[in-house]
Amino acid sequence: MLELIGGKILCLSMQCALRRPERSFGIDRCAMCRPWAAILIYKALTIKEVKLKVNTEDLLAKALKPAEDAMKLHPFYRGKIAVTPKCIIRDVNDFAIWYTPGVAEPCKDIYKNPEQVYKHTNKANMVAVISDGSRVLGLGDIGPEAALPVMEGKAILFKYLGGVDAFPICLGTKDPEEIIRTVLLLQPTFGGINLEDISQPKCFHILDTLREKARIPVWHDDQQGTAAVTLAGLINALKLVGKAPDQAKIAMVGTGAANIAITRILLAAGITPGNVIMVDSKGTLHRGRSDLKDKFKEKYQLSLITNKDNLAGGTAAAMKGADVCIALSRPGPDTIKKEWVESMAGGAIIFACANPIPEIWPWEAKEAGACIVATGRSDFPNQINNSLGFPGIFRGTLDVMARTITDEMCITAAEELARCAEDTGIREDYLIPTMAEWEVYPRVAAAVGVKAIEQGVARVKLSREELYKKARQIIKKSRDETDLLMKEGLIAQPEG
Amino acid sequence: MLELIGGKILCLSMQCALRRPERSFGIDRCAMCRPWAAILIYKALTIKEVKLKVNTEDLLAKALKPAEDAMKLHPFYRGKIAVTPKCIIRDVNDFAIWYTPGVAEPCKDIYKNPEQVYKHTNKANMVAVISDGSRVLGLGDIGPEAALPVMEGKAILFKYLGGVDAFPICLGTKDPEEIIRTVLLLQPTFGGINLEDISQPKCFHILDTLREKARIPVWHDDQQGTAAVTLAGLINALKLVGKAPDQAKIAMVGTGAANIAITRILLAAGITPGNVIMVDSKGTLHRGRSDLKDKFKEKYQLSLITNKDNLAGGTAAAMKGADVCIALSRPGPDTIKKEWVESMAGGAIIFACANPIPEIWPWEAKEAGACIVATGRSDFPNQINNSLGFPGIFRGTLDVMARTITDEMCITAAEELARCAEDTGIREDYLIPTMAEWEVYPRVAAAVGVKAIEQGVARVKLSREELYKKARQIIKKSRDETDLLMKEGLIAQPEG
Repeated sequence: MLELIGGKILCLSMQCALRRPERSFGIDRCAMCRPWAAILIYKALTIKEVKLKVNTEDLLAKALKPAEDAMKLHPFYRGKIAVTPKCIIRDVNDFAIWYTPGVAEPCKDIYKNPEQVYKHTNKANMVAVISDGSRVLGLGDIGPEAALPVMEGKAILFKYLGGVDAFPICLGTKDPEEIIRTVLLLQPTFGGINLEDISQPKCFHILDTLREKARIPVWHDDQQGTAAVTLAGLINALKLVGKAPDQAKIAMVGTGAANIAITRILLAAGITPGNVIMVDSKGTLHRGRSDLKDKFKEKYQLSLITNKDNLAGGTAAAMKGADVCIALSRPGPDTIKKEWVESMAGGAIIFACANPIPEIWPWEAKEAGACIVATGRSDFPNQINNSLGFPGIFRGTLDVMARTITDEMCITAAEELARCAEDTGIREDYLIPTMAEWEVYPRVAAAVGVKAIEQGVARVKLSREELYKKARQIIKKSRDETDLLMKEGLIAQPEG
Repeated sequence: MLELIGGKILCLSMQCALRRPERSFGIDRCAMCRPWAAILIYKALTIKEVKLKVNTEDLLAKALKPAEDAMKLHPFYRGKIAVTPKCIIRDVNDFAIWYTPGVAEPCKDIYKNPEQVYKHTNKANMVAVISDGSRVLGLGDIGPEAALPVMEGKAILFKYLGGVDAFPICLGTKDPEEIIRTVLLLQPTFGGINLEDISQPKCFHILDTLREKARIPVWHDDQQGTAAVTLAGLINALKLVGKAPDQAKIAMVGTGAANIAITRILLAAGITPGNVIMVDSKGTLHRGRSDLKDKFKEKYQLSLITNKDNLAGGTAAAMKGADVCIALSRPGPDTIKKEWVESMAGGAIIFACANPIPEIWPWEAKEAGACIVATGRSDFPNQINNSLGFPGIFRGTLDVMARTITDEMCITAAEELARCAEDTGIREDYLIPTMAEWEVYPRVAAAVGVKAIEQGVARVKLSREELYKKARQIIKKSRDETDLLMKEGLIAQPEG
């Protein structure tokens, strides 16, 4: 199950975090793989010495193991989250402090000054993960009940990676106005809102309205979160090929919520609008696209400022001569063709992020001359993974009690993520960190907190160092807790 | 700080659970009180040997300690609840099981069959504690933010006593229709709803509508919960004085949500409607009360079936010759007068449940001839305490995946609670168990589960023994978890 991708040897187990050659162990078993997923890793050869043997079936098969485990382990645990006390309960008499009569005092204190709710309750660390289940993963509109396992998963990512208490709320409505109203009504309990897996175009309206009306930060991870992590990867990719961001020509393939949000953030981060060409199912966005104005406000607005030469045509036209192709469109592997990659400028960068199969296989992109390839998969190098972003971003936002998450905070997070990878040493197969590098999260948190303070949206002022220390401590505690419960058997080991 | 109440010696520390003479230790220090609350307990004397020295100031002063602690400890912990993983996370690779790609399988399974959400998520054990903050404790309409400490407190009671994951949701609206709609929209995530501290009369409409429309059990603890525990106390009190429930004449003082709900449940449990006389601020409810029909539907309906002799007058009239007085009205101590108690039938039973000061001090009621006195306070015997009810009732409801909580389940819970006390040995100062007797919760859970199965509202069928074992295990795990986190310092000890 070894594979050579771009001359690097990779362990292709979905469970394996060691996917880089310098960490392989000759012909030894992969050190990170557990016995049940043991994989041999062979000595690295060069790309020219080995014929690539990967095919779609193999890769799809690899995805089956987590699916199998998921079907066994979800019922074993009957869900993934619990609500637990975080205060002492020495015996039931302590409830006189936590409930009546003692609790009346904090209540009165908050009644006098509503900001005190951040001091007396967990609001300061509590985020709602809200979905209507209208666009879940690659599964589409499966509804709120079926979306719940994903939202619970998101909640444990929030906690384990960012120390953030996140609570999944799947709403039994698809009406955007009702979703907006409900989120506004839920505000007293939460310090922030993470919208998730809501279909476009309503997700834009929902996010924009809530960012305007809510008193707490509102974030749509499929928009800003994906944008932050993609930008991080792009910053380092451009560095590696020695191109200036404001000169880079970028083809954006797909105009889903994510790619529209990425484009917005790229422009805010200094990419030249005219150098970007977006492509939807009808071709490139340009001033002649009269079908956009009434129905697709966001695409229409982007069609006015991108694509300076008003280029018509499809993905092939958009990619020709481009420095970068960022695809979040239809699962591949033939959505992007090798000849289109061949037509790109030298040092081409491809982000083929469709799941489960990228728009083009990384090795095919490489064979066609791509210099750097990123995907959305954890079993290839350069995973553009949302889980690198939101935990640290929310950690930093909550730690300064920010009123909102600005685009600048989002860009700062991307820059810090890029810097984390650079500090380790970026290479064409290591653009951004992986989830296992947990120091990344407090770094991102501190950077985001500092930016919020700079921008005047923070209620708490701390130094970068204080923010880093605080974030690190909270995240470490969160991991220690899970480790302890596992060690002591209160989180049971699965059978077999 | 000893007190003799009804000839029994009591430790009056709010923190002390040892309030019964057979557990005192002569002149030893109270074994349950912690050093910072050490209290001497003297040998029990008889009531005639000691002059009672309690006064309002002393008792109010006693309530200050939990208030003081609450103001120190709420900010120390910054809230009381956390959202934590309950599944293994051996390392970040396990997120391939809990999140994408593995999670897609359970999602698809639920999409095919929505009932599977109970298997793959924590819905089966998740209850929302929902309030609009319109009637919080004795504090009135303090709003949703100020209500949050109470709802977080409720959540930890749910978890510690019942093993139920409960999440506080304070809503930013007071509009009953909007509250109803929001609760309906929240259903996909939750296995049950606990309404809390919502003002009357809207609380009746909200509960009744939701019980009709919701697909999951909806409970208003200030109605059904209080009713269940009060009924439990009354069952044993009547036993002690040797009176038959269907013969008992009962004065209900106060017509708040709780007393109206108690009356409903008492009638459902076999109390004779005509023998009940309710009293509001304008006097007894009777057929001549023309002010009720349009404005107070619930009171009006009760005025038609209670008070068979159509007795007019105030509390004094209602109590004259009554066997029982259940007061949940204005804080005392002079809301109920000694002479009214003197006018009651022999073997009089008084439940004086206003907080923080009962409508009449227990010793005054006793001096006036009351045989049994219960209050809402933990520092007197016979605390009518909601926390004895809802944790076990929800445990049982969730364990059989009941579609609703019927009045019969509520009455069964009361009967089981009464039986628990009887098994220990009821006395005039021990009508119902205390929170410290944690075996009570799985017993109530099993009884409620069995009743739900009997009534055909359960989705899961288990024997009483299986239900008891399951509930006991879940509750024990919940307590063990908190104990472990405290022991290992992950729940910090407060300073000083």
